Amino acid sequence: MTGLVAQLTSRISFCAAHRLYREDFSEEYNRELYGPCTTDHGHNYVIEATVSGRIDPETGMVLNLVQLERFLHEEIFEHVDHRHLNRDVPFLKGVIPTAENLAVIFWQRLVGRLVPFKGARMHCLRVQEMPGSEVCYFGEA
Amino acid sequence: MTGLVAQLTSRISFCAAHRLYREDFSEEYNRELYGPCTTDHGHNYVIEATVSGRIDPETGMVLNLVQLERFLHEEIFEHVDHRHLNRDVPFLKGVIPTAENLAVIFWQRLVGRLVPFKGARMHCLRVQEMPGSEVCYFGEA
Amino acid sequence: MTGLVAQLTSRISFCAAHRLYREDFSEEYNRELYGPCTTDHGHNYVIEATVSGRIDPETGMVLNLVQLERFLHEEIFEHVDHRHLNRDVPFLKGVIPTAENLAVIFWQRLVGRLVPFKGARMHCLRVQEMPGSEVCYFGEA
Amino acid sequence: MTGLVAQLTSRISFCAAHRLYREDFSEEYNRELYGPCTTDHGHNYVIEATVSGRIDPETGMVLNLVQLERFLHEEIFEHVDHRHLNRDVPFLKGVIPTAENLAVIFWQRLVGRLVPFKGARMHCLRVQEMPGSEVCYFGEA
Amino acid sequence: MTGLVAQLTSRISFCAAHRLYREDFSEEYNRELYGPCTTDHGHNYVIEATVSGRIDPETGMVLNLVQLERFLHEEIFEHVDHRHLNRDVPFLKGVIPTAENLAVIFWQRLVGRLVPFKGARMHCLRVQEMPGSEVCYFGEA
Amino acid sequence: MTGLVAQLTSRISFCAAHRLYREDFSEEYNRELYGPCTTDHGHNYVIEATVSGRIDPETGMVLNLVQLERFLHEEIFEHVDHRHLNRDVPFLKGVIPTAENLAVIFWQRLVGRLVPFKGARMHCLRVQEMPGSEVCYFGEA
Repeated sequence: MTGLVAQLTSRISFCAAHRLYREDFSEEYNRELYGPCTTDHGHNYVIEATVSGRIDPETGMVLNLVQLERFLHEEIFEHVDHRHLNRDVPFLKGVIPTAENLAVIFWQRLVGRLVPFKGARMHCLRVQEMPGSEVCYFGEA
Repeated sequence: MTGLVAQLTSRISFCAAHRLYREDFSEEYNRELYGPCTTDHGHNYVIEATVSGRIDPETGMVLNLVQLERFLHEEIFEHVDHRHLNRDVPFLKGVIPTAENLAVIFWQRLVGRLVPFKGARMHCLRVQEMPGSEVCYFGEA
Repeated sequence: MTGLVAQLTSRISFCAAHRLYREDFSEEYNRELYGPCTTDHGHNYVIEATVSGRIDPETGMVLNLVQLERFLHEEIFEHVDHRHLNRDVPFLKGVIPTAENLAVIFWQRLVGRLVPFKGARMHCLRVQEMPGSEVCYFGEA
Repeated sequence: MTGLVAQLTSRISFCAAHRLYREDFSEEYNRELYGPCTTDHGHNYVIEATVSGRIDPETGMVLNLVQLERFLHEEIFEHVDHRHLNRDVPFLKGVIPTAENLAVIFWQRLVGRLVPFKGARMHCLRVQEMPGSEVCYFGEA
Repeated sequence: MTGLVAQLTSRISFCAAHRLYREDFSEEYNRELYGPCTTDHGHNYVIEATVSGRIDPETGMVLNLVQLERFLHEEIFEHVDHRHLNRDVPFLKGVIPTAENLAVIFWQRLVGRLVPFKGARMHCLRVQEMPGSEVCYFGEA
Repeated sequence: MTGLVAQLTSRISFCAAHRLYREDFSEEYNRELYGPCTTDHGHNYVIEATVSGRIDPETGMVLNLVQLERFLHEEIFEHVDHRHLNRDVPFLKGVIPTAENLAVIFWQRLVGRLVPFKGARMHCLRVQEMPGSEVCYFGEA
């Protein structure tokens, strides 16, 4: 089993408040764009990071899953859990906290942590707001 | 099958923001009591109402489950979904929105809807904030 | 740990079609009672049997869970899976297949299997039609 | 974040009856092909539509998830929920309602709704009949 | 809302190996009692503790759910996670690790932690070995 | 619908014990590599096989899902359920049972069963050890 490639996925959850609203848009246009999401509400977000890489024939692992979970905690959970995403998170300043934007920004925060792992790279960052809806970002094409 | 008793459970979910904080307590005491919950955050709440009643031998039902789900929507969902529980819900004014307090108040709102159903009564109101923690209220002893 | 009491729960799933409709009721009254359920549809039913009994101090078990699951298969699954509950199941002949009626009848089929197990008795039979709604029967009061 | 691409997924559930049986095949050949599925039974189907598109830098969204869910309701749910898929659904006339065929036909119904959304296109249509089995269709190669 | 009673439930998961086998029983009798469980295998156990108590009208809580989760971690998780339950856990020495016996022993470990909380008491300790089977212990009658 | 391609997924679960430890590595290096997994523990593993193939226009199926589930049982479940993966499974002799290695070996066992199905091929083999972590293998590039 030399040089085989696999994907690893680690999943965490955090609780946060948010709203979708742009101050430079009218009340009506905000309503039209974001529907019921213009007012303060919240979610148990589920975040899933998938890393692609070669299985090290010596250890039988791409990357230790405990390590990947630690990156998710340090780069995401510690900054957003029990926060209001529009106000309390420095790296989200000025960003409309849609699931799409969160996916892109969380991806960017994680990607640097994988640099030391030769042959491993971010494949997908998934953001689930509710059991019935989610967004997946695969990096810049 | 005359006169047999069964329990029916209906489950809905809503998204809301909240915080646990009493203005008349010090910052320190709030922290001590409510830990990380003193700041704005949110949940995908799951609410479960269980009704106990006789199975009508003619219809084979205690109560139509669609009807029970409608009561949950009208009495709970429409008032709390996409809201901030500390500020936007008239019937929660002045209440610390802990899971326990929500369970008691949601129970009180539903109980009146069951009056027309002879032999049916509220058995339990469950509030789940996160997959790993929930509160169940069974009415006044 | 002599003489302690515990509850065991075993869960199975089956796929069946059904409708809620009484030939001796008018079309309108059927609609009023059963709403959208008057026409043929189906579910992945989940059935849960809970047995209460003394923990045998020698074996550390109330009843082997594998055995309880076998009873659920033999008394329920084999007769209803991939069937139309209104037409294909002899022991449901003439019964409106509401979740309540299924709970009572499944209970009655299982209860005989527990007779050889001294100190064990059926506590609850749960029928879930969909993730958001279920019925629980506890036997005759 | 200009011009980044993401995938959105929306999930709904419906309850329907079906059977897998071709009148022009013998009883034996039907059994051989479709096993226990030749007789009437039913499922809580879960349908998942995944749309791929550019994140609009102004709104931070590919498409409003509420809108995608509405398409799923109007094109799928309203036509199949509480129906018998072999008999009651005009657009399934003459189709063996396997999960594969449902995936293709549901895809075709949704794809037209995405035309007004420049840069968005259907990526995947998933049909789950039971928790342990599902089919995914990605359109014509 | 003075003096109202509610139940709180907190849930944790741990990964452990175990087998059901008594050295003083014959190989055949072990097989007869424990079926496929006589050999080493393992589970992602889910443990659920339910506490019953008065809702403090000042705080709106029976007990802080974070605190209850901490008791579960300190009394259970830290001792059993990533262990072999037959060999590596001092407080399980000489105990056949059936779900029933685990429920009784985990209950006994938690009950002491609730002494300082006047009006709160253990109501139920649930042990789930697999999604389809679980045991619930309610203390000595 | 001639010549359309779809993916089928079938999912099974088994209970097994394992540890991550190489005898030719020092205790310290094992700890560094595998963290808490160096000691005996276990999981309710979930295995998911995804097959890609043409939808047969006559049967409306790629492959009967019951058949795919049977392959999972015969090639995987029967050999690993209620076993210790480091000691009791001949085809895992000498393999560190990481999720990555299990995914590769389970893939290799299944791939032969698909040879008779012209146009069908293995797409993905997923191994989930716990709800929050999983590995996916797509075959040799």
